[in-house]
Amino acid sequence: MNDSSIDVLAIGNAIVDVIAQTDEAFLTREGVRKGAMQLIDEARAEHLYGAMGPATIVSGGSGANTAVGVASLGARAGFIGKVRDDELGRLYTHDLGAIGVRFDVKPATEGPATARSFILVTPDGERTMNTYLGACQNLSPADVDADTVRAAKIVYLEGYLWDPPEAKKAFRKAVTIAHVAGNAVALTLSDAFCVDRYRDEFLGLMRDGSLDILFANIHELQSLYQTADAGTALDALRREKVLGVVTRSAEGALVVTREETKSVPAYPIERLVDTTGAGDLFAAGFLAGLSRGMEHTDCARLGSLAAAEVIQHIGARPQMNLADLARQEGLAG
Amino acid sequence: MNDSSIDVLAIGNAIVDVIAQTDEAFLTREGVRKGAMQLIDEARAEHLYGAMGPATIVSGGSGANTAVGVASLGARAGFIGKVRDDELGRLYTHDLGAIGVRFDVKPATEGPATARSFILVTPDGERTMNTYLGACQNLSPADVDADTVRAAKIVYLEGYLWDPPEAKKAFRKAVTIAHVAGNAVALTLSDAFCVDRYRDEFLGLMRDGSLDILFANIHELQSLYQTADAGTALDALRREKVLGVVTRSAEGALVVTREETKSVPAYPIERLVDTTGAGDLFAAGFLAGLSRGMEHTDCARLGSLAAAEVIQHIGARPQMNLADLARQEGLAG
Repeated sequence: MNDSSIDVLAIGNAIVDVIAQTDEAFLTREGVRKGAMQLIDEARAEHLYGAMGPATIVSGGSGANTAVGVASLGARAGFIGKVRDDELGRLYTHDLGAIGVRFDVKPATEGPATARSFILVTPDGERTMNTYLGACQNLSPADVDADTVRAAKIVYLEGYLWDPPEAKKAFRKAVTIAHVAGNAVALTLSDAFCVDRYRDEFLGLMRDGSLDILFANIHELQSLYQTADAGTALDALRREKVLGVVTRSAEGALVVTREETKSVPAYPIERLVDTTGAGDLFAAGFLAGLSRGMEHTDCARLGSLAAAEVIQHIGARPQMNLADLARQEGLAG
Repeated sequence: MNDSSIDVLAIGNAIVDVIAQTDEAFLTREGVRKGAMQLIDEARAEHLYGAMGPATIVSGGSGANTAVGVASLGARAGFIGKVRDDELGRLYTHDLGAIGVRFDVKPATEGPATARSFILVTPDGERTMNTYLGACQNLSPADVDADTVRAAKIVYLEGYLWDPPEAKKAFRKAVTIAHVAGNAVALTLSDAFCVDRYRDEFLGLMRDGSLDILFANIHELQSLYQTADAGTALDALRREKVLGVVTRSAEGALVVTREETKSVPAYPIERLVDTTGAGDLFAAGFLAGLSRGMEHTDCARLGSLAAAEVIQHIGARPQMNLADLARQEGLAG
């Protein structure tokens, strides 16, 4: 891990979030699975957008949200993902640059538009995502710059990358380069249904040594091990050769190794508005802490703090300077 | 006012808000006038956007925000303004339709892009606006459909309409049609510097009978009458032939007629986040109440409630259903 110029390099789908408040009846009427991420095609995107309420547009994408969180915490972040050279693609690129995330991937000059996710937020703060992958489908190994990957202490990959056809090759290329350079690789399972689509491959990645760190919420972990019992899933995780980081919403997070399991409480909040980005920002805090050599429990506290900020407003990107917030809370590391 | 199918028809600049949090130092460095709306050209827009932080994109525009507030309160709203047929123009049109605002103006198929305002929000919640008028410069009398204006109980115009060259002709056309039909005309002074640009014309409109209702905040009113003293400005307003509605931020609002002046307190809030849209939503509540025949003080209470909602989050469009909120507060009318 010498000569690294990036603390955390995230690789993920570059997606603009189109967020609208909605009610339960709309989800039922449209037949969408509450709380999950569903992939939709262009026709369905047109339909949903026409039917949904007024929207707020904020750059998103799980891995990119994490990169932004890392940068907001004062660590050095990079992102690899694919936009098109359209208006939303330019907004997306601006937002990454403006917070200081290194983002050098060339936008596509042809093919589908910049990806967008229609995110429906219910009054309970839960978000339901309908994602049109658009330009993300063109992310390929050529977009993974070897020098950039080598320069990163930690490469962070999202499970959603298994969805676009070429992205998993980009993913595997990054893993190989990172490990040859002696750097760490982390994966987030992303979504319980995503785990359902790629369970064997994700288990394979953990067991063939591709992964050093695994992020999951408890539902994703239960989906991974196909069990309705959280304890059983955690026991299974303890037997893997990774550092496991498991989030459990308001019940806080667990840091799981073969040797021990440590618990960190969720950070208190005033009002839950929109859970979009909670997991992404938790990972940002954890990884920013890890890149500074902080204790695992302090990493989880930093993750919890970052997640608490992002669920108290609309959108998955922090609205406050997280480094200031961490200093105020004595978590500067 | 018979056979009206629209309660409030707003005519204004159709502007997409590009909102970023910032600090005082950035405003100083960029030489922008805090709290005001400044017009900028394309080159300045490019520069500011490049220099500012990550942004949230929400449809805005003073008059359109008011129309959306009226619709959210369950009254019938319409909007006249000009976008281009580009991506932001489509977002803008979607957002108006999705909340139920009637918006039939054809987008421009050539010329400048949909207007955008770069809104810089400081930690005190104050917003500073830098507006590139773009497609708004093409709003013309041809866009003012006579039947639509005749169908509206109240036509609501923004002072900002005096900025684009052709819009004031559209404005005057709407006033004439509304008055021939026996409907009411309201104007908001928009901004103290806007008043400075068009003081004589605004005073002329009040005095030649073009206006029935005037909305202003106390700074705009003082600018109108060129006085540093609020009392003097209010005395001058009392002598005009209009119903005056004056907002004073946290000190609440005044309803001013020749006969009397009534005061209504501001609505209590938990946390001031972004004042963008406060005046627009106050006007929405007041006009929605007026269109239902509510007492002036109840109209002002409804305005105060709507303004309180919008200043507690980013963006100038309500995120809660204002009709539900009004019912909860016993202001359903």
